[in-house]
Amino acid sequence: MKKRFAVILAAGQGTRMKSKLHKVLHAICGKPMVEHVTDQVSQLGMDKIVTIVGHGAEEVKLQLEGKCLFVLQEEQLGTAHAVIQAKPLLKDEDGTTVVVCGDTPLIKAETIEALMKHHENQGAKATILTAYVANPTGYGRIIRDDAGHIERIVEHKDATQEEREVKEINTGIYCFDNKALFSVLDKVSNHNTQGEYYLPDAIGILKAKGSVIAAYQTDDFEQSLGVNDRVQLAAAEKILQRRINEFHMKNGVTIRDPEHTYIGSDVVIGQDTVIEPGVMLAGNVTIGQNCHIGPNTEIKNCHVGNDTTIRQSVAADSAIGSHVQIGPFSHIRPLSEIADDAKIGNFVEMKKVSFGRGSKAPHLSYIGDAEVGSGVNIGCGSITVNYDGKNKYLTKIEDEAFIGCNSNLVSPVTIGKGAFVAAGSTITNDVPGEALSIARAKQINKEGYVQKLNFKK
Amino acid sequence: MKKRFAVILAAGQGTRMKSKLHKVLHAICGKPMVEHVTDQVSQLGMDKIVTIVGHGAEEVKLQLEGKCLFVLQEEQLGTAHAVIQAKPLLKDEDGTTVVVCGDTPLIKAETIEALMKHHENQGAKATILTAYVANPTGYGRIIRDDAGHIERIVEHKDATQEEREVKEINTGIYCFDNKALFSVLDKVSNHNTQGEYYLPDAIGILKAKGSVIAAYQTDDFEQSLGVNDRVQLAAAEKILQRRINEFHMKNGVTIRDPEHTYIGSDVVIGQDTVIEPGVMLAGNVTIGQNCHIGPNTEIKNCHVGNDTTIRQSVAADSAIGSHVQIGPFSHIRPLSEIADDAKIGNFVEMKKVSFGRGSKAPHLSYIGDAEVGSGVNIGCGSITVNYDGKNKYLTKIEDEAFIGCNSNLVSPVTIGKGAFVAAGSTITNDVPGEALSIARAKQINKEGYVQKLNFKK
Amino acid sequence: MKKRFAVILAAGQGTRMKSKLHKVLHAICGKPMVEHVTDQVSQLGMDKIVTIVGHGAEEVKLQLEGKCLFVLQEEQLGTAHAVIQAKPLLKDEDGTTVVVCGDTPLIKAETIEALMKHHENQGAKATILTAYVANPTGYGRIIRDDAGHIERIVEHKDATQEEREVKEINTGIYCFDNKALFSVLDKVSNHNTQGEYYLPDAIGILKAKGSVIAAYQTDDFEQSLGVNDRVQLAAAEKILQRRINEFHMKNGVTIRDPEHTYIGSDVVIGQDTVIEPGVMLAGNVTIGQNCHIGPNTEIKNCHVGNDTTIRQSVAADSAIGSHVQIGPFSHIRPLSEIADDAKIGNFVEMKKVSFGRGSKAPHLSYIGDAEVGSGVNIGCGSITVNYDGKNKYLTKIEDEAFIGCNSNLVSPVTIGKGAFVAAGSTITNDVPGEALSIARAKQINKEGYVQKLNFKK
Repeated sequence: MKKRFAVILAAGQGTRMKSKLHKVLHAICGKPMVEHVTDQVSQLGMDKIVTIVGHGAEEVKLQLEGKCLFVLQEEQLGTAHAVIQAKPLLKDEDGTTVVVCGDTPLIKAETIEALMKHHENQGAKATILTAYVANPTGYGRIIRDDAGHIERIVEHKDATQEEREVKEINTGIYCFDNKALFSVLDKVSNHNTQGEYYLPDAIGILKAKGSVIAAYQTDDFEQSLGVNDRVQLAAAEKILQRRINEFHMKNGVTIRDPEHTYIGSDVVIGQDTVIEPGVMLAGNVTIGQNCHIGPNTEIKNCHVGNDTTIRQSVAADSAIGSHVQIGPFSHIRPLSEIADDAKIGNFVEMKKVSFGRGSKAPHLSYIGDAEVGSGVNIGCGSITVNYDGKNKYLTKIEDEAFIGCNSNLVSPVTIGKGAFVAAGSTITNDVPGEALSIARAKQINKEGYVQKLNFKK
Repeated sequence: MKKRFAVILAAGQGTRMKSKLHKVLHAICGKPMVEHVTDQVSQLGMDKIVTIVGHGAEEVKLQLEGKCLFVLQEEQLGTAHAVIQAKPLLKDEDGTTVVVCGDTPLIKAETIEALMKHHENQGAKATILTAYVANPTGYGRIIRDDAGHIERIVEHKDATQEEREVKEINTGIYCFDNKALFSVLDKVSNHNTQGEYYLPDAIGILKAKGSVIAAYQTDDFEQSLGVNDRVQLAAAEKILQRRINEFHMKNGVTIRDPEHTYIGSDVVIGQDTVIEPGVMLAGNVTIGQNCHIGPNTEIKNCHVGNDTTIRQSVAADSAIGSHVQIGPFSHIRPLSEIADDAKIGNFVEMKKVSFGRGSKAPHLSYIGDAEVGSGVNIGCGSITVNYDGKNKYLTKIEDEAFIGCNSNLVSPVTIGKGAFVAAGSTITNDVPGEALSIARAKQINKEGYVQKLNFKK
Repeated sequence: MKKRFAVILAAGQGTRMKSKLHKVLHAICGKPMVEHVTDQVSQLGMDKIVTIVGHGAEEVKLQLEGKCLFVLQEEQLGTAHAVIQAKPLLKDEDGTTVVVCGDTPLIKAETIEALMKHHENQGAKATILTAYVANPTGYGRIIRDDAGHIERIVEHKDATQEEREVKEINTGIYCFDNKALFSVLDKVSNHNTQGEYYLPDAIGILKAKGSVIAAYQTDDFEQSLGVNDRVQLAAAEKILQRRINEFHMKNGVTIRDPEHTYIGSDVVIGQDTVIEPGVMLAGNVTIGQNCHIGPNTEIKNCHVGNDTTIRQSVAADSAIGSHVQIGPFSHIRPLSEIADDAKIGNFVEMKKVSFGRGSKAPHLSYIGDAEVGSGVNIGCGSITVNYDGKNKYLTKIEDEAFIGCNSNLVSPVTIGKGAFVAAGSTITNDVPGEALSIARAKQINKEGYVQKLNFKK
């Protein structure tokens, strides 16, 4: 099999984004545009992937570290000029080189694969990925001769009225015989209105030399959509979101309103899980079978077991077991492990907690920096006092302990197995197992006293 | 008037749903698909409704209990084979029988009624519900003779190129003279590529016998959309949702974003109520006039009065009065009754509470298993301690009582009329009416002590 | 430059709205329809804007007070009859008068400007704003002669089959030579099926007198959409929302899902701010650069600085600084000022608070009627007890104070600079600076006691 290479163009400035962030680093579905491209290209077993960086070079390199090689294009003088920067890394290689833009985040590996296969089968020196589009205004048109062979690409502004009728357009994605590519790139000139070195001109030169030039027409124009401003960014996100959601629905996940469900590209969801509207799943998320997620739940980097319900809540960087109930309106912060059968009700915050099997924190609690055993009941309003203004300390609550309502567990402190803390107590010392601990004042009723309070209505 | 019967086909497996749940039990707008069909059919005064069950028979019967008769189709050998299972229940009846699929949840009673009327007016033995569709690919086409009479139905895969141009399609919904239907069903064969007994073949046999075959063309193709996978399930929900929302808007309800408002089919909403985006109303919900609901509010099985506002909150199985304010971020759990003019603020949970007229729980409270009178003020953070680890007990708070902030009312306990509980008290004994009750430690200020605390920044 | 006038028709009843609220007062994107129209018209430097009021006259006048003059149309006898009511205010003026309906909230100032310019350039006595529309059913058609001049407007119901093919329609927005208009209005008759005086008839009379009649065709038909029921109200809101969101996106704001982001027309947002789905920004809101807002956040009348994050929260009538973090699930109520670098975590409510630089209220607190200095830490569950059942009092917390968890600060009270309140304390007296204040009972552990509690599991 031939060697394969990819050149990803990611140096352009993207002024229409009006952003301090480099264009290709703007995210869709939670991942920078250029990374969508490299991730797709990577699936094709490339021998080298070379990303051409320029504006925001350091940030782009940091984002893609380990995924590709980088070459700096100091000045942005056109697409041919960009590709020529890769010459030191590629010029001696035999094989096929695909050139893709870093701002076309919707391109699929399978389309690039089909393009490269077609190129190789045709014995072409250059192959253009083309698409049929109902309204081609603005795109370069593919001009074919009577035999249907590619004649040339004409830019919209240079096209005659007749040429503008052509609805087959250049997607800007190309495939080249690598050595042929680098043999002609130097000959491309910048004698045009923009004063830029254009990559399609390299194809013209190859054709003039008598090389076979091919075209592979995709039936999915959307894949080649480029993003130049934030309106297009939102449009691209919508398309990718629909694609991701359809993938999950076809796999047996119910998504009640796919137009309003935001799932990252790397999320895994089990069969018969129901996703309600307004759910956002971002980053490295796996959700088991038969779960009920949402509405309006945001989960980032979590593993969730089976048969778990998470409603109107937020969770990040945590592991949540099976048969767990969370919400509405709870917040699972990083480094929490919620064991099977746990119940976390409303207005509850967890942070850096291991929360044991079958334990419950039903209402208005904050449990932070804690180890909670199994079968524990945390009463309404009870909290861990984990911070003294300087340091954070650990609270341990052993199995089957019962923490009365509105209690303060001032850490470091341990509540022993099966212990019982009375409601309203502030606990500063350890409580032995099976002990009752109480810290509260005696109730005094002053009869008829309310009449004496002048402030009472 | 002729007798009328309906046969609902609900036995198929639905493998493309990839689900442990039987296909027709998947819900749209909160109600299983097959139940949408039976509910529509039921409006037509049927003498018998027979649902053919097979896969998931027990679950389907449980869901539709009391709404129809059931017949088991043990093996799924085609639509004609399915209908023939109803023979014992229907064969001796004179009348009109409509056959509908349980996976076409968008069909409306008025369309079935029009179909049956047309059938009866035409004196037909069979009438097909047809629809005009711009892209008929995949559907059975209606082939008519030069006089416009139905000739036959041809399946897409069996259609000639010319027949495929036909845009009138078979919706799969039929109407029959009941006795004619059962007289020919036995004669349908399974000599086709799928080896199945097809119901349209029964129509062919009737036609061959010289019977009148009619067609009724609906102008609303969407009603006959079948659901075979979860992408189609979401699409059907979208259509039904739009239909429900337009109904309410035309009735005088403002729905700011109907594309993102989820209202169940049985919900009632009064005039001049405003529904903000992200609202979900499910099950048996009635909302009065001039209310303001949402954004992002989920209400299930609740009655809500007039002029009430519920924002960013969740409520279930409760009654909420008029001029009530709830939210943002509150949670009304089942069996609560919130009287007129009450105010429930943020981060408040109510469960099994009767909450009296004009009473307030503005912040961070949990009131569970309680009877709260009128004019009561529940201070911020005050809670009912209704659970001792084993049992739940009742809290009574009488009219005009004032519960100070962060108080614990340890149930069973009664706070008398007009009593005043001081902030930070844990109340374990009853408080008489007009009494002041206090249970807290004396404040001690240790001046300059903070310097001695080595942990303080 | 010629004088310019506008007449806004806002007297009609709008029965199809089915509302107690007058039609033109129904809001889209948070502003009444008629106010969108007056706000656009006002941008054109009109000498007089006259709004014709009838149904709901008092409410309309109240809403638009100061923005225009008003004339009452006691009976609604047609558009010509409506305009004639403005005669006392306009009849002696030389200039150009535009007539716009108060229920076309999508019209843009630039379109009215172009209409008036065209009118003036053509030396016309009347100019019709027309639009090309694919499906013109229901609209008045523009009938032109062979030379392309306007012949007349024919209503849909009066149009011949041939005329119905015309796709250029009357938007209902007109421009007149002011004196010419009032010279012919009296001559308009009501001899038609509706018995109404129609404004287009005035154009016919002008034409019959030999005046130049012009037409200006907008390419944006949507601007002239009228709202007659709440389905159209929602559709208009969708269009305006898209327009507003595209404006911000083109300015450098990322809006992840513009289909589900609700931004009022007067909101200002800085570059590189990201708006997540489900965000509502209403009224007078300004948001700085590089902020992260949402998901599901509602902000009304707030100023927000730069680099601030507000997640799943609600804020109103407050000022929020830069580098502030709020949420998820917090509630900033009116008259709060949150200084730079502050952190407000989850389940926190603020009301009428000045909250100092770098101060924190991370969990489950209510801070109301308070002055909080800088560098203060409010422990979890700590609250201000600002209400005694009759009056509200102020709490002062000075710089660098540390408020332990679940504390009650019973106002009026001052916590001095650098003071430390122990967890679980109810503070009723002032705490001096650098003092430790404590108010809690001693903890008692009763070993083995749990076995004796018959209620414990």
